[in-house]
Amino acid sequence: MSAPSARGSSLIGRPASDIDTPALVIDLDAMKRNLGRMTEFVKKHNIRWRPHAKLHKCVALAKMQIKAGAVGVCVQKTAEAEIMVAGGIHNVYISNEVIAPSKLARVAALTQKVATHGGQLAIAVDSTEGVIRLAQAMAQARLHSGVGTVIDVFVEIDVGQGRCGVEPGAAAVTLALEIRKHPALRFAGLQAYHGKAQHFRGAQERRQAIAQAVDAVRLTRQLIADQGMAVELVTGAGTGSLVLEAASGVYGELQAGSFMFMDADYARNERDPAQPQFEHALFVKTQVISSGSTHAICDAGHKSHAIDSGLPLVHSFEAETELEYFNGGDEHGVLRPAAGQQRLPSLGQTLWLIPGHCDPTVNLHDVMIGVSGGLRQGTVQRIYRVDARGALT
Amino acid sequence: MSAPSARGSSLIGRPASDIDTPALVIDLDAMKRNLGRMTEFVKKHNIRWRPHAKLHKCVALAKMQIKAGAVGVCVQKTAEAEIMVAGGIHNVYISNEVIAPSKLARVAALTQKVATHGGQLAIAVDSTEGVIRLAQAMAQARLHSGVGTVIDVFVEIDVGQGRCGVEPGAAAVTLALEIRKHPALRFAGLQAYHGKAQHFRGAQERRQAIAQAVDAVRLTRQLIADQGMAVELVTGAGTGSLVLEAASGVYGELQAGSFMFMDADYARNERDPAQPQFEHALFVKTQVISSGSTHAICDAGHKSHAIDSGLPLVHSFEAETELEYFNGGDEHGVLRPAAGQQRLPSLGQTLWLIPGHCDPTVNLHDVMIGVSGGLRQGTVQRIYRVDARGALT
Repeated sequence: MSAPSARGSSLIGRPASDIDTPALVIDLDAMKRNLGRMTEFVKKHNIRWRPHAKLHKCVALAKMQIKAGAVGVCVQKTAEAEIMVAGGIHNVYISNEVIAPSKLARVAALTQKVATHGGQLAIAVDSTEGVIRLAQAMAQARLHSGVGTVIDVFVEIDVGQGRCGVEPGAAAVTLALEIRKHPALRFAGLQAYHGKAQHFRGAQERRQAIAQAVDAVRLTRQLIADQGMAVELVTGAGTGSLVLEAASGVYGELQAGSFMFMDADYARNERDPAQPQFEHALFVKTQVISSGSTHAICDAGHKSHAIDSGLPLVHSFEAETELEYFNGGDEHGVLRPAAGQQRLPSLGQTLWLIPGHCDPTVNLHDVMIGVSGGLRQGTVQRIYRVDARGALT
Repeated sequence: MSAPSARGSSLIGRPASDIDTPALVIDLDAMKRNLGRMTEFVKKHNIRWRPHAKLHKCVALAKMQIKAGAVGVCVQKTAEAEIMVAGGIHNVYISNEVIAPSKLARVAALTQKVATHGGQLAIAVDSTEGVIRLAQAMAQARLHSGVGTVIDVFVEIDVGQGRCGVEPGAAAVTLALEIRKHPALRFAGLQAYHGKAQHFRGAQERRQAIAQAVDAVRLTRQLIADQGMAVELVTGAGTGSLVLEAASGVYGELQAGSFMFMDADYARNERDPAQPQFEHALFVKTQVISSGSTHAICDAGHKSHAIDSGLPLVHSFEAETELEYFNGGDEHGVLRPAAGQQRLPSLGQTLWLIPGHCDPTVNLHDVMIGVSGGLRQGTVQRIYRVDARGALT
């Protein structure tokens, strides 16, 4: 619909300097190095990796990750799962609760669809009502199609995030037992994701948080085993804490996705020595459209990048003035020289912003423009469509 | 692309309870009352009204506003202007600076296009370089097409926003004189928008800010008149301050747009007694997907609504528990009972959120679902496409 997406494909082979602003640009070389570091890491720890596609919402990037060794993808929304499956991704985990019967009917239909491709759908639950409704939807789908399939069901426990998930322990056992009652549901294990811990700044603080999560998982796993059921897999972890879950001996699958692009917020974490050195690989290209004596204004505001985890940083190339970005509203950024520096950028100058938070930034764009050979001297290699942009339901 | 937009049109005539979550819903009755209050207000003050289409990004709503008396629309982006013009809106003002030659070529082409429909394009400038580049683009377009058209050019002065715009006074005169040099540019007046003042909470504080803006406009207007040029029109004002600009005797055009939907942030302003009583008309419908002992979780996070101006409020119907919304990340909202209340919403329950800031909230969605007859009992009347969603360039 919008002009940039319509014109995106004509950019291929052209210099990065031709990209109109504001635009979301992937430094493909940096992204591929991040991907390489991650695949090396999971191999070394002999752990499964199922990256969260809510980051990039892009079928092509999901396929790149699967080719590099990922077992499939996580998503948060039924609509995201539908788009991934339509794009040919057949191992999809909806790592979130789904309650609406109309959505659960879509989940059941998807389960059947991926099964015809030898794939597997999975979902999280945190209530008996949720399990029963899911079972009803699966039974309906079987009745409707005559084909019986099984969905993998993870019981979500709250390991410190304070969001979805039941308390570790007895409540999780109740849900596992409920799942066992329904032939179209298979108890696949535990979802134990500590979202808050991802952004704890101190490495020690993160270590404590994940140690508690591991204790909660161990306790729950034992109680479920006491009922004669096996917890085959514990899934969780994000870019901020993945080294801890990987070393825990309890988690069998990492959901980390953000390391691909590495936003400004994650870069503010004190790095655990075991953590791979991920680089920033996602940028908002912007241009100065107004320049005064005290500040300059660029054409990227918070309709171009999410500000929930702080404002973007201005990427400074060598020998350039460092600039600070201040909130200028929906369509503008206010730029001032960093402390001790003087020079303001000139009218028309190009700047590259490192978003505070990549996931919701990607969701603002129709396309990500992949550049190789550096941001300033590079060439546009590929346009990545944000296939699941706005797929909210 | 995404599921909700694809399915949107099949909702027409169905009860609002059928709308899948999360979804952006317009209370059409409330919106039309807001529109009626505004048209009455501008008639009473005998002032032009050119609402900002950056709010709704929707051709159909722009047409509704023009039918109600608006002279055209404002936009912030060239791509937004292109979409409005393509939709049949021929009086468009890009109330922002455009510097890139490739964009200015598009602006010049649009100027020619609207002229064939008897319309007029306008743009803001705040630099000599910007004026010269615009004139070059207009000359190129003339050379290319053989047709000469004229673009209206407003000199933007900074009346307290601290963003774009030159200082009031001599710098504005310099720009007006520069515009006069170029036959394809017509000096149309002054852009004097005080964005910050819109959100000053106290009515007195807003009064002082706009009084200063009016002084700055008067001074600049006089200096330009001293050069033998007339300032035909002063344009500005938003929903927060419009009563002040309307009463100023200086502003000839109001750009207010947000009153149509009236977000939570504008509702926090102390109301000026002269201000029409605008109602909330834009909501995010959401559903409870997880419910514990201390909190419940709904399926709308900041990929469903912008949080730059604060978190959404939970609309409370009569006799319902009041709930407070806390940030639960990209896809979740955390709900707790307001002080002194106890009951949590139950699994599956529908809630209606009032966004903190409407403009960037609309930009997250493909469609706005128009409901008439109340949010709970009403019927879906029309699906409004967010035509310029993501039109950033």
